[in-house]
Amino acid sequence: MRVLGIDPGLRNLGWGVIDVAGSKLSHVANGICHSAPGEGDGDLAQRLFSLHSQLTEVLRQYAPDAAAVEHTFVNKDAVATLKLGQARGIALLVPAQFGLTVGEYAPNAVKKTVVGVGHADKGQVDHMVKVQLPGVKIAGPDAADALAIAICHAHHLQSAGRLQAAVKRAVG
Amino acid sequence: MRVLGIDPGLRNLGWGVIDVAGSKLSHVANGICHSAPGEGDGDLAQRLFSLHSQLTEVLRQYAPDAAAVEHTFVNKDAVATLKLGQARGIALLVPAQFGLTVGEYAPNAVKKTVVGVGHADKGQVDHMVKVQLPGVKIAGPDAADALAIAICHAHHLQSAGRLQAAVKRAVG
Repeated sequence: MRVLGIDPGLRNLGWGVIDVAGSKLSHVANGICHSAPGEGDGDLAQRLFSLHSQLTEVLRQYAPDAAAVEHTFVNKDAVATLKLGQARGIALLVPAQFGLTVGEYAPNAVKKTVVGVGHADKGQVDHMVKVQLPGVKIAGPDAADALAIAICHAHHLQSAGRLQAAVKRAVG
Repeated sequence: MRVLGIDPGLRNLGWGVIDVAGSKLSHVANGICHSAPGEGDGDLAQRLFSLHSQLTEVLRQYAPDAAAVEHTFVNKDAVATLKLGQARGIALLVPAQFGLTVGEYAPNAVKKTVVGVGHADKGQVDHMVKVQLPGVKIAGPDAADALAIAICHAHHLQSAGRLQAAVKRAVG
């Protein structure tokens, strides 16, 4: 099974794709969709359109079977939260357009799964992503977060799968 | 020229289409794209996908030449602001996918254009929309706001057009 993780942002939207075979994870690809701020009327719509096109291309190229997006908001700043929300709308939309169910995980849930503690710092997350995906070259911090989200979703799906299998054995 | 106005929201996304001929405005259509909250994994992505599909159908059916979206945020509540941002991402994306430049107006700018004062209440906006678009039947408050945004954008484009014409005369 192939899993896509997305760390949404308007300027930098990180993405990471991993393959899951049993308990074995392997890196497929990662990168960052950029949309630099421009000027004038219609700029924000154009940036979202650009993010949508870039992320659509990622889905086309790597054809994941499952996707997850980080669930976060910036409490201190409504303008920043609105911007993030707009980018997050695109991050959730594109996998749904490919017929995928899109999981959502809070940053602490991602850290807890990948590092073992919910308050891990960026360096620890980065390190554990590299440990779990040997040989990975990471495009940048947003791509590292996206890979961590993909790993978190993979573990979650595996647990759900094991649970289903256990229930099947118990009732079968 | 045909102008689309959008009042974004996750549960109710209002839209309104008007025609502009010189200084004459006329109503074409208005409505509300609904996405009710569901349950389970992937629900938010599905709601955004549904809004995207419904709004795409509006653009296909009415083929506007210009579009504008209300620019607003909810300062008091980061969760509400994030939700609005996600819906707003879709509202900005769809017209851009149809090659339109998307204008943005703060609520006060819309009220100032449509009613004459920036602090007008919903009832006044509703009344002036009906005065300026005789015979209009409005689908609901979000559709009324969307028509007001379309009217605001039409006035703005007319002013810009008049300015360009004046500059042309002055230099020509």
